[in-house]
Amino acid sequence: MNKYENMSRAELEAEYARMTAAYADFKARGLKLDLSRGKPGAAQLDLMTDMLDCLRDPADCRTAAGVDCRNYGLLDGTPEAKKLFSDLLHIPVKNLFVAGNSSLNLMYDTVARAMLYGTCDGEPWVRQGKIRFLCPVPGYDRHFRICESLGIEMINVDMTPDGPDMDAVERLVADDPTIKGIWCCPKYSNPDGYTYSDATVERLAGMKTAAKDFRIFWDNAYAIHDLYDEEDQRDHLANIFEVCGRAGTEDRVFYFASTSKISFPGAGVAVFAMSDRNMAQVLPIIGAQTISFDKLNQMRHVKYFGTADNILAHMKKLAAVIRPKFSIVLDTLDRDLSAPGFARWTRPNGGYFISMYTMPGTAKRAYALAKEAGVTLTTVGATYPYGKDPADSNIRIAPTYPSEADLTAAMDGFTVCLRLAALEKLLG
Amino acid sequence: MNKYENMSRAELEAEYARMTAAYADFKARGLKLDLSRGKPGAAQLDLMTDMLDCLRDPADCRTAAGVDCRNYGLLDGTPEAKKLFSDLLHIPVKNLFVAGNSSLNLMYDTVARAMLYGTCDGEPWVRQGKIRFLCPVPGYDRHFRICESLGIEMINVDMTPDGPDMDAVERLVADDPTIKGIWCCPKYSNPDGYTYSDATVERLAGMKTAAKDFRIFWDNAYAIHDLYDEEDQRDHLANIFEVCGRAGTEDRVFYFASTSKISFPGAGVAVFAMSDRNMAQVLPIIGAQTISFDKLNQMRHVKYFGTADNILAHMKKLAAVIRPKFSIVLDTLDRDLSAPGFARWTRPNGGYFISMYTMPGTAKRAYALAKEAGVTLTTVGATYPYGKDPADSNIRIAPTYPSEADLTAAMDGFTVCLRLAALEKLLG
Repeated sequence: MNKYENMSRAELEAEYARMTAAYADFKARGLKLDLSRGKPGAAQLDLMTDMLDCLRDPADCRTAAGVDCRNYGLLDGTPEAKKLFSDLLHIPVKNLFVAGNSSLNLMYDTVARAMLYGTCDGEPWVRQGKIRFLCPVPGYDRHFRICESLGIEMINVDMTPDGPDMDAVERLVADDPTIKGIWCCPKYSNPDGYTYSDATVERLAGMKTAAKDFRIFWDNAYAIHDLYDEEDQRDHLANIFEVCGRAGTEDRVFYFASTSKISFPGAGVAVFAMSDRNMAQVLPIIGAQTISFDKLNQMRHVKYFGTADNILAHMKKLAAVIRPKFSIVLDTLDRDLSAPGFARWTRPNGGYFISMYTMPGTAKRAYALAKEAGVTLTTVGATYPYGKDPADSNIRIAPTYPSEADLTAAMDGFTVCLRLAALEKLLG
Repeated sequence: MNKYENMSRAELEAEYARMTAAYADFKARGLKLDLSRGKPGAAQLDLMTDMLDCLRDPADCRTAAGVDCRNYGLLDGTPEAKKLFSDLLHIPVKNLFVAGNSSLNLMYDTVARAMLYGTCDGEPWVRQGKIRFLCPVPGYDRHFRICESLGIEMINVDMTPDGPDMDAVERLVADDPTIKGIWCCPKYSNPDGYTYSDATVERLAGMKTAAKDFRIFWDNAYAIHDLYDEEDQRDHLANIFEVCGRAGTEDRVFYFASTSKISFPGAGVAVFAMSDRNMAQVLPIIGAQTISFDKLNQMRHVKYFGTADNILAHMKKLAAVIRPKFSIVLDTLDRDLSAPGFARWTRPNGGYFISMYTMPGTAKRAYALAKEAGVTLTTVGATYPYGKDPADSNIRIAPTYPSEADLTAAMDGFTVCLRLAALEKLLG
């Protein structure tokens, strides 16, 4: 088959007729499937069943030092949980804070706190006039929603397979003191699945910023979420604290991670890491906000996993569940969209998403067609600030939640929608 | 024995010698006890052991409607948890939000949100210049710390056995549009154990406020925390939403409660209740802050308790553990301090505290004496904004955490410290 761009009008019309028929068949199947959010599937969660009841009596609720985790105390987390995440993420215990069930909540609170209190390097952001954040695009809609909610202006920066376009980032932060932050999902990025190169991390750590109180919001949501066992298929991300340490810019980083895609989304444990100076500023404010986080849930994670190595072993089991789903998506896209040639998509080594770039100006239409046939995709535009993809091209595919059978059915239909939308545009 | 105020100098000196000797004995016991915080004792927490592992398999994690609580979703809580707290607190489900492990965190966030976004009745508080809160005193230190942390000025209002001095409250809020809130612990108040009378609730609901965006922060922390079974020993608190409903002021109330002193402190479930208009403003902002709270912990509470009546039955078991501790405190105070006559204290029907008013100007000294002997009390002044008790008189006694034996030892020594401090002052 020819590429669409090389087809005659007659050929396009014939293809349009085929796709119209295929779409009618797709719709007739009466599917009701959700590929919109990065939610683990039930088979992944079932692997965690033994954690549900791993605390059984009061003795299970005590730290090694004898603190009763059923009661108040230990604002920054249990020593055992801190040790576990320190080993896992290679961050010193003293720079770690183990909190509640949501790293997003930690991120929101960190931005809100900077608005109200400032950082250790400057006045409250609410007193500094208009504030701006850099947003590598496409990116995570919930990062953007935090900014939008708090009235922080967002500036798009293009993502590349090596991370954000660092020429643009460096230029922008060097000149504009109102740029206070950048959202980073540095490993297996949402939605592209790209991992920041060592050079990108070096440049983020070393760049001059006009704002003394500039902060990198380092959402390492997929820190250990590899899909493949082979070493050359596992992305490497530099340790930003080590790199910033060498550059003398440790205070620039607010680091976040969680077990949302390790144990249970919404009932996992979130961690927050930062420099000594940031910790000294932030901890007393969190101490005004709450007495302590849910240490019993921290204990459940510690008791169930025990060691960082056991968490990594668990990730392999999860990968075995997820990998076939990524294959279904990629195989279907390869099979149906390689020849037409109007789309490209990413092939991540980990994370939760595949990022589809379809013919510009047709993503919304493809989304609507899929929706009409009962398949919900991530809202087109959601991967951009203010919900606006300037090219109307990017669609985030989240393969993990549906069963393999449902995913196959959904993807078979989705490529029809993409082709139909492209053909509609080509035929005017 | 005479009252101290009626003693001659010689009598006071003889008493001083006796107390000095008693204090030396107390110190010699080498105690190490903490009566500072309102923490449940281990025997209370042990009553909850069966909740630890009450979720055992994936089926236990589903709501009646089939939502998998191991996964994201249901921002405002599971329907079952909302129903349970609706029944318990007599608040309509639609006005309830069931959240994470900390009602204090909900309170902090609610104040911070009003600072950044305003309420549905006005501009962000950060844009309204100096903001003030009324603080009934003595009160809960962590309420005051929220204000202090956020730079909100605090105005003391005296507590009475019927609640805050409403003449003062009404006068202040009528005139001053910068007064945006009042902290209320309306039932078994912290630390006095007083419950707001119906008249007080009516006046709070009905009073004219110069600020359109005035809010009552109704921290009903001890809503069902009765100590006694007898009907006439159980305080009654009016339902503020019903009273405000009649006055047309439902939007004035932000209502908080939690299971911190029902199930596990720090690993319980917190609830947030508000009017339809407040909910409509607040919910989308919380939706920017997090994806969902820990629904598995909500499920644990629902599965373990089942019904509001079962929670009330559980409270009776807790009361049976706590009641003897309150008796130890009250009996010791009656025995040792009735005759000297320089102190008064409250006799609550519920809650977590007994409030001691010792001879003005001697509370700090008594605290220091107890501390030196190994007994830590709530920091003197902590029950007042900025940690300053103008009379240096109030000490909050928290009987629940120590064992009965430890509590007896601590109280025996504490009354010595109180008497010694008073005698030092009288003898100049």
